[in-house]
Amino acid sequence: MISKEMVTYVQSSSLIRAMFEEGKRLSSIYGPDKVYDFSLGNPNLEAPKEVKEAIIDILSNEADTLVHGYMNNSGYEDVRSTIAESLNKKHGTSFGEKNILMTVGAAGGLNVIFKTLLNPGDEVIVFAPYFGEYRSYTANYHGKLVVVSPNCADFQPNLKEFEDKITQNTKAVIINSPNNPTGVIYSEDTIIKLTEILRAKQQEYGTDIYLISDEPYRELAYDGADVPYLTKYYENTIVGYSYSKSLSLPGERIGYLVIPNEVDDFENVISAANVANRILGFVNAPSLFQRVIGKCIDVETNVEFYDKNRKLLYEGLTKIGYECIKPEGAFYLFVKSPIEDDVKFCNAAKKHNILIVPGTSFACPGYIRIAYCVAYKTIENAMGGFASLMAEAGEELVAASK
Amino acid sequence: MISKEMVTYVQSSSLIRAMFEEGKRLSSIYGPDKVYDFSLGNPNLEAPKEVKEAIIDILSNEADTLVHGYMNNSGYEDVRSTIAESLNKKHGTSFGEKNILMTVGAAGGLNVIFKTLLNPGDEVIVFAPYFGEYRSYTANYHGKLVVVSPNCADFQPNLKEFEDKITQNTKAVIINSPNNPTGVIYSEDTIIKLTEILRAKQQEYGTDIYLISDEPYRELAYDGADVPYLTKYYENTIVGYSYSKSLSLPGERIGYLVIPNEVDDFENVISAANVANRILGFVNAPSLFQRVIGKCIDVETNVEFYDKNRKLLYEGLTKIGYECIKPEGAFYLFVKSPIEDDVKFCNAAKKHNILIVPGTSFACPGYIRIAYCVAYKTIENAMGGFASLMAEAGEELVAASK
Repeated sequence: MISKEMVTYVQSSSLIRAMFEEGKRLSSIYGPDKVYDFSLGNPNLEAPKEVKEAIIDILSNEADTLVHGYMNNSGYEDVRSTIAESLNKKHGTSFGEKNILMTVGAAGGLNVIFKTLLNPGDEVIVFAPYFGEYRSYTANYHGKLVVVSPNCADFQPNLKEFEDKITQNTKAVIINSPNNPTGVIYSEDTIIKLTEILRAKQQEYGTDIYLISDEPYRELAYDGADVPYLTKYYENTIVGYSYSKSLSLPGERIGYLVIPNEVDDFENVISAANVANRILGFVNAPSLFQRVIGKCIDVETNVEFYDKNRKLLYEGLTKIGYECIKPEGAFYLFVKSPIEDDVKFCNAAKKHNILIVPGTSFACPGYIRIAYCVAYKTIENAMGGFASLMAEAGEELVAASK
Repeated sequence: MISKEMVTYVQSSSLIRAMFEEGKRLSSIYGPDKVYDFSLGNPNLEAPKEVKEAIIDILSNEADTLVHGYMNNSGYEDVRSTIAESLNKKHGTSFGEKNILMTVGAAGGLNVIFKTLLNPGDEVIVFAPYFGEYRSYTANYHGKLVVVSPNCADFQPNLKEFEDKITQNTKAVIINSPNNPTGVIYSEDTIIKLTEILRAKQQEYGTDIYLISDEPYRELAYDGADVPYLTKYYENTIVGYSYSKSLSLPGERIGYLVIPNEVDDFENVISAANVANRILGFVNAPSLFQRVIGKCIDVETNVEFYDKNRKLLYEGLTKIGYECIKPEGAFYLFVKSPIEDDVKFCNAAKKHNILIVPGTSFACPGYIRIAYCVAYKTIENAMGGFASLMAEAGEELVAASK
């Protein structure tokens, strides 16, 4: 028998992943060009050519036992130095090798930091809509997820409610900007206010509250939008990063944590995170891709690819009558469901071979998430289906009102 | 502040890893050829040339978005099929794709299966000496490690004590053969008796007891020794495998779990393990190396490399007067410490720039582990140091007896 906890998980397994599997099933029936899979943040964009070049260079010129061997559980020192220097150049920070811990993607990094910090019952605050896996990552260490309800006007976080929900037991706050699923970037004004609240609450309760910035979409910011680097606004900030989106490497599981010197209990956090990386079974981030990152540190993300998709999808859908705010970052459109029941709407979409995820999965019912990290023509070809869905929804609403 | 649990971990962090770091420090002072690092199972052997060829082939011929993209959390279906067929050919089993779950090394696999199975308080039995990380992996899910004391005569498991220690709460038993740290292969006779005990106890208590076979050293068997494939002896067997040793890829974190159809609650175990892989933050095993494994399935392990080291080290040390059983597998020699205090002996060895790990780390004090996955000349050059250590130990014993 599996554990009692896992029984619940198996029953309520990720809707996003279920959609991804459904997409593969439909593709095998109708052909991949007749299925419009907007379910998963799986970039339909090749990794930059520099990645392949780096792999070949490394395999040709570096010692095999180094490239595929064990290193410190925190990662290769030279790669961590390179990352620290790159962050310093971009953000005016002053990180060193010691502040960087290479992780098995951002998901691995978040598990490492929660294992490091959370005592059972500690509270972790998230802002709805939020990436559903945060709930599992917190539960893995018996933390308690505290959800701040969504602000559907502009999807900036609801700061009044946030302030009210901070307690003596608040250990961490997760921020995800550019945001999955809304595509919103938390403004500098938001960040300043949010960190002022945190500082005041730390003082009020005499506790330490860690701000965890989960930012795999950092580079995906459009129209020159600025994404504030949070360690500059709040001392107790830990950054989780992943190359899944910026370099199109989601399957490779490569990312890092930044743990600045200014973080409370720094030496212990660093040591414990290193141990956590090992005992959780990651041991270390995949070695070849650590070395690839060391060589690709200055490679730019192909923002233009996503920006074209963003414009096509946003303009196309709003023209048909869908309502949504224009995303400033990431590669998701968070659209008001034309009918109230977002799960029902996503099921209806399946009949048009369109795979999208209900806002319910992000604790924000009444919305749908459309991941536009797809081929341009997938968006073009899906527009007819989206139009039909809107027409059907209209008929249903008319019928219901009679 | 870090969590209370992690405070303990930071204080008692892995001695093995500490030795590895010490080795790097000493190398930077004395030069790598003057430091004899036998601490970590980090193969000083290049990966087979087929690995590099496979990577270049994959990068040249497979779609980039496939190679680096997300796939099912359990791994690529074609790779899992290839592994299943290879196991069937070798062991006469009848696995299919569904029975294979690709993992972030064996450490990732063990965490996935413990997350899947363990309720708090469930007991996990291990046989001393055992790989110390099993304690952390079990504790991660609030399982209770139950240790069967070592049988220092031949290091086959102590089956009488094993039988006595199985209770109503026993959920799993870990077997590691070829064994780290002893190099012993559990004989077929041992396996038959051990699984008979398990079957009888399952019946007696009306429970299910999973046998977890952690076997990263399966291919490292010398003199034609046979390593029984446990799923053929006991239905409730789950196998954890890693390519860290067989293909010299420890840094790449690539392995798999075998969950046979015959396992109790099979469908739920499979589903839960898939979910556990995701929510623990692994998400999936690194994608490029999954594909490499698909292409390198028939590549043979370079057993000869280790066998030469084994003979040199075993013959060299026994000639000087060290006592140990000749290892049949893996790449460790488990040697009786010339003085009773193994930790003290390992510290004395450091003065000769020899890095070895005390048996205490494996719940077997009075012994030392020497990992011989090193260059041949490292063993040759360290022999003088080992001889001096033996002489010093002799003097100490004489002095103590006066």
